[in-house]
Amino acid sequence: MNQNEIESRDEKETGRVEAFSDGVFAIAITLLILDLHVPRDLPATTTLGNALLTQWPSYLAFITSFALIGIMWINHHKLFTLIKRSDHLLLVFNLLLLLGATAVPFITSLLAEYIGHNGQRVAAMIYMGNFFAIAVFFNLLWRYAARGRRLLGRDVTEAEVRSINRSYALGPPVYLLCLMTAYFSVPIGLGMTIALVIFYALPLGANAR
Amino acid sequence: MNQNEIESRDEKETGRVEAFSDGVFAIAITLLILDLHVPRDLPATTTLGNALLTQWPSYLAFITSFALIGIMWINHHKLFTLIKRSDHLLLVFNLLLLLGATAVPFITSLLAEYIGHNGQRVAAMIYMGNFFAIAVFFNLLWRYAARGRRLLGRDVTEAEVRSINRSYALGPPVYLLCLMTAYFSVPIGLGMTIALVIFYALPLGANAR
Amino acid sequence: MNQNEIESRDEKETGRVEAFSDGVFAIAITLLILDLHVPRDLPATTTLGNALLTQWPSYLAFITSFALIGIMWINHHKLFTLIKRSDHLLLVFNLLLLLGATAVPFITSLLAEYIGHNGQRVAAMIYMGNFFAIAVFFNLLWRYAARGRRLLGRDVTEAEVRSINRSYALGPPVYLLCLMTAYFSVPIGLGMTIALVIFYALPLGANAR
Amino acid sequence: MNQNEIESRDEKETGRVEAFSDGVFAIAITLLILDLHVPRDLPATTTLGNALLTQWPSYLAFITSFALIGIMWINHHKLFTLIKRSDHLLLVFNLLLLLGATAVPFITSLLAEYIGHNGQRVAAMIYMGNFFAIAVFFNLLWRYAARGRRLLGRDVTEAEVRSINRSYALGPPVYLLCLMTAYFSVPIGLGMTIALVIFYALPLGANAR
Repeated sequence: MNQNEIESRDEKETGRVEAFSDGVFAIAITLLILDLHVPRDLPATTTLGNALLTQWPSYLAFITSFALIGIMWINHHKLFTLIKRSDHLLLVFNLLLLLGATAVPFITSLLAEYIGHNGQRVAAMIYMGNFFAIAVFFNLLWRYAARGRRLLGRDVTEAEVRSINRSYALGPPVYLLCLMTAYFSVPIGLGMTIALVIFYALPLGANAR
Repeated sequence: MNQNEIESRDEKETGRVEAFSDGVFAIAITLLILDLHVPRDLPATTTLGNALLTQWPSYLAFITSFALIGIMWINHHKLFTLIKRSDHLLLVFNLLLLLGATAVPFITSLLAEYIGHNGQRVAAMIYMGNFFAIAVFFNLLWRYAARGRRLLGRDVTEAEVRSINRSYALGPPVYLLCLMTAYFSVPIGLGMTIALVIFYALPLGANAR
Repeated sequence: MNQNEIESRDEKETGRVEAFSDGVFAIAITLLILDLHVPRDLPATTTLGNALLTQWPSYLAFITSFALIGIMWINHHKLFTLIKRSDHLLLVFNLLLLLGATAVPFITSLLAEYIGHNGQRVAAMIYMGNFFAIAVFFNLLWRYAARGRRLLGRDVTEAEVRSINRSYALGPPVYLLCLMTAYFSVPIGLGMTIALVIFYALPLGANAR
Repeated sequence: MNQNEIESRDEKETGRVEAFSDGVFAIAITLLILDLHVPRDLPATTTLGNALLTQWPSYLAFITSFALIGIMWINHHKLFTLIKRSDHLLLVFNLLLLLGATAVPFITSLLAEYIGHNGQRVAAMIYMGNFFAIAVFFNLLWRYAARGRRLLGRDVTEAEVRSINRSYALGPPVYLLCLMTAYFSVPIGLGMTIALVIFYALPLGANAR
């Protein structure tokens, strides 16, 4: 095989890692809807509109988790425009990342159920702990791939590598801060997480990430 | 990289946006089936056939939502034969669109549960409001990509752009009309939506869209 | 664009139809498992082994439906090695086919619940009626694509077209026969369907299809 | 068609087998989360933290099954870098493999429900029996594809074939050993399975597989 054929074979290989990951992200983001429940057997004193409004924690948790998985997917997508080869450990780190994504429907349901009740602190810390873990796994995956340019494409510049190093280094401490804030105040911790999501969705945040 | 290599890299990029979106559309359309429930513990006076027939709102809502997501997918597919590059904001607008698709199983279940009962007006307006929002997001996505031909392929003609501009401009007012009609009469609003679906499925409607 | 570029653009187009269809088939086949329920709260007089054995209709229905969707996928896969372009009506016929696939988890659950009880005839006829409808939609899709070689690749031979015409023509009457047999005897109708699945899975059946 | 065109057509064909399989693996691995249940209606004497801790069998089963499907996917991915053509029987063997993957959410739920209670032996043996069956199907698929190099790519070396033959031959007896051990002691059988997962995830195990 010449150099071009080898590159093409490698790209096919990471192509399938991306396809499997896309599948897991797509399913995890869509399963979130299963936690929204149609109100049934309304008492005569309640309208459907009111019954839906009292479910606001479920909607808030749904939207926040949707946005967080969406941002994860955008990040994963951008990483794999730079990563062009795969090996066994990359697949294992990628599976750890997907494990975090898979857990989101459960932790979202937990948060929606307990917010505003006893146990909300535990629920919020598990919720944020999962996103903290995901941020750590993203760093593991990227640093493993980028060390000595092990699995990067030939056309990736040093400036690109440094820029991702820098912005990824921010992820774990920021999510850890949300996690610790939630220990003292669940609403402030959640508010910080939502502000973070909005920041990342804006074009400005895209560069900071 | 020469021009061809750049184009090929870009196509790979939108390729993954399409793959992720296909996944979300495919899952949302398939999850609709989870809202059809097998009748259990039938009283001795009812046959299975009759029990199934009384579930007609669920079947009607299932078929309508299936067709609406199917048409969304066809639209998305056609757009991305013209859009050849992606950037951060395109991904964000695409996520908004997918958020609308993800919500469909929930709003379908809501509609099927309340049609013909108290609360049907709220349920129908939420149902149509979601498709109105999707039509708005489609316009956002397309106009962002097409402004100054920002993300379009080189071979897209001005006539193609104008034709899509024109037909997309129709989407939001048409769904808004259904929404407002449902406020006054749920059956007429739903009938209009179903007529719209049939119109879009016909070859004639394909050109109008 | 020269001829090769046009062909490549077309293949990309059917490529996305296949990706979306693969997603729907994959999800429908995997959702079947949600109808197997873990026995809970066993009475002291029953072992887990016995409790599982009494669920045999669920397992039988699961395996049969898994095989039927699997064969659908193989058929779809083979068709799209011949179909190389897509247009609006092809997408609509393909959506009808996917509607049939999407319904399988529900009709499987219905069959498993009612087999051996009152209502089993209705459940079996709905089950087989769905596969009859799928066979009809397969013929619609194929004949639309093949008429005048409308959407076929250049390298498809007339002999290939005639061979598929012949074997597809068999599908609807065979499933209709199963359906009508189930009206008189559910066990015989089901037995015929299972025999059909085994026949199709064997290499011999591959040529007959 | 010249030799290159034939190869490219074949690769497209196995490409779709991989896409469908990726979909099934991705859905099966993500559906595992549906078996984790948010504790509801806690008695006043229990905290949420405690209620979650008593669910440890569900978490353990979730992680183990996630890792086992993840390893299946890695294996499947590696096989299809060598398999370059497909035929009817390959598709059937692949469907058998996917049947095994699809069953995982059910058998995981069964194991999590019964571990530590009456019936745990039956649950554990069904769990391991499924992975034993998967190991057998992997051997069927590989040996069918590799016999006389029937479906392998031209660039696959004899050494690669022999190395996979050797490591795949180990799969069925190892899982059979876990299965038989579970008959005598469920904890030891499960512990062996978990040790196996960890071994496979390490780079060393990657070569042994």
